[in-house]
Amino acid sequence: MNILEFLISPAEASRRTGPNDRIVFSSRVRLARNLKSHPFPGHAKKADRIKAYEILFPAIRSLPQMGPEPFAESLEKLTPLDKQILVERHLVSREHAAKGAGSGLILNREETLSVMINEEDHLRMQSLRPGLQLRQAWLSIDAVDSDLETRLDISFSEKYGYLTACPTNLGTGIRVSAMLHLPGLVLGEQINQIIQAVNKLGLAVRGLYGEGTEALGNIFQVSNQMTLGEAENEIVERINKVLLQLVEHEENARQSLLEKKPKVLFNHIGRAYGVLANAHTVSSKETMNLLSLLRLGVDIGMFAQTPKALVDELFLISQPAHLQLNHPDREKLAAEDRDIFRADLLRGRMKSVPTPQEPPARSSETAV
Amino acid sequence: MNILEFLISPAEASRRTGPNDRIVFSSRVRLARNLKSHPFPGHAKKADRIKAYEILFPAIRSLPQMGPEPFAESLEKLTPLDKQILVERHLVSREHAAKGAGSGLILNREETLSVMINEEDHLRMQSLRPGLQLRQAWLSIDAVDSDLETRLDISFSEKYGYLTACPTNLGTGIRVSAMLHLPGLVLGEQINQIIQAVNKLGLAVRGLYGEGTEALGNIFQVSNQMTLGEAENEIVERINKVLLQLVEHEENARQSLLEKKPKVLFNHIGRAYGVLANAHTVSSKETMNLLSLLRLGVDIGMFAQTPKALVDELFLISQPAHLQLNHPDREKLAAEDRDIFRADLLRGRMKSVPTPQEPPARSSETAV
Repeated sequence: MNILEFLISPAEASRRTGPNDRIVFSSRVRLARNLKSHPFPGHAKKADRIKAYEILFPAIRSLPQMGPEPFAESLEKLTPLDKQILVERHLVSREHAAKGAGSGLILNREETLSVMINEEDHLRMQSLRPGLQLRQAWLSIDAVDSDLETRLDISFSEKYGYLTACPTNLGTGIRVSAMLHLPGLVLGEQINQIIQAVNKLGLAVRGLYGEGTEALGNIFQVSNQMTLGEAENEIVERINKVLLQLVEHEENARQSLLEKKPKVLFNHIGRAYGVLANAHTVSSKETMNLLSLLRLGVDIGMFAQTPKALVDELFLISQPAHLQLNHPDREKLAAEDRDIFRADLLRGRMKSVPTPQEPPARSSETAV
Repeated sequence: MNILEFLISPAEASRRTGPNDRIVFSSRVRLARNLKSHPFPGHAKKADRIKAYEILFPAIRSLPQMGPEPFAESLEKLTPLDKQILVERHLVSREHAAKGAGSGLILNREETLSVMINEEDHLRMQSLRPGLQLRQAWLSIDAVDSDLETRLDISFSEKYGYLTACPTNLGTGIRVSAMLHLPGLVLGEQINQIIQAVNKLGLAVRGLYGEGTEALGNIFQVSNQMTLGEAENEIVERINKVLLQLVEHEENARQSLLEKKPKVLFNHIGRAYGVLANAHTVSSKETMNLLSLLRLGVDIGMFAQTPKALVDELFLISQPAHLQLNHPDREKLAAEDRDIFRADLLRGRMKSVPTPQEPPARSSETAV
């Protein structure tokens, strides 16, 4: 099965909506699980890894939650471009994309359920939802997990809980995370303060592709650090509460910019629009930052007729692998030509986006 | 007489054309002259300066070359804004604009002839022309000078020629200069090499407002350094020749960019267009650099329906004093508000400029 034919289109993916999706792009709950009496993938010999794989692969593929026709494949069957596409969709980790034979991916049609076999742990199972839907994501992955326990012999200690390759996942093996778009807090220069406060609550704040990556496009991933000593639903509820507060902080920051520095705000958004619509070469990194401002402009009403889905689609298709996929000569595309092709694509798509207008003032205080 | 009512409009001024005006914005020949037996303005006591002024003012005003109704005024009658407007039009020097009582300006209706009284010398007389017209400018100011010598007792030494306050003007008292727009040489990174070569020919290369100023908007002033030991028309011919070479170098640089780095060129011009059309606050300095790229875009055919006069008008009216002049609350305009007003004005005017298009390729080699 070809993963590129399996995946839903970027346009369709971008039309999905969820609660608070002005600010929360997506919610994710991931569980780490391992088979009893099989060495962890990082310590296993090839034969052991394949033995575990052969137990796990059919068990996961036949899970009712995966639907009748999931994508199920060994990673050696995927090209580097296929893997990079999956990373850009957040369906596999960057670490998993580097793996080959003995590692695998099983993904449902809706792309809401993704299971990595032989990543750092035997199983990394994640449920993904648009907007702020941590509870729904948790219930969904919990159902998968319960079902799986009846089929597999999972490594579990009465004292420590689920055993994992890395002690940071020990206990519940849960990672609850959300992707937040926080341009208001960045432009309002409150983001560092907010990150510190969130860290003090025991949550990590990272960039777009997780640990060690930059917060391109003002997109931040917030997730739990601790997996031990707290029940899964408590972790979910706690993070949900923090995320609702972050949403409120971001909304306040945007409102404050609109009231106190409207021209600075319109200037950032207008310039971003101007560059996106007229550049002839643009890097992936710059594009993310420009699209962040365009999305903010859509959110605050500067582009009355432009749906957020268009911007979200541009976020997706301007990333390196998605871009390459759209190029007629995809295999031989050099980085320099990719930047030119990205600009061509953006100029073309931006033709349907009208010149930004100052949003209607909410009160007399918003006038300059 | 009010200088602001006297001056021709920026739109009219920008419609003027001359030879090679794709690259040479304007040509200027200036003569420094002093009265015999009167101390130079910088060394004169107030009474002496006024005595010289009272001889010079009526003599200049009544020159036939000044026409029937020149602008003729003591600088104390001009407001700081009036003076800054004159500096931005290159009709008085920045040094002269700082002067008051005892200094004056006489300007003909066409703004091609401007005489400063009691600048560094008793007389600084200049002829200005659009495009590359050094000979015409020289003939025009020479006629003024010859006429003036019949009316005034000019300080002249058989050994040194015309005596001037600063020895750098001694001899002919002539300064021949042109304002060149050299974005091709700047983008092609050849400008420093060119400046060095021009310096070796005994010519100075300066920024937009003369000595010690920055080359904003890729605009460079080229002028003679030596005023001694060479006849005026020889200096004019020599500089004219150098300027023609510079024009050729700039045309070659543009052609080379079009052939070898078209995307880089279109990218600079496209982005400049995008920012000019969409910024909500923009400094004078950034504006000059953006307009330089817009002008280059017009020159190479990326804006088929846009005349160069529009860009040249924007160059003029986006400068601080001209901008302030157009503001309803001109006296109280803070720098921050000026940048917002400038952006408003540019966005408004840029509505008539269509999205840039890649120019038609001249040969198959120009394709990327």
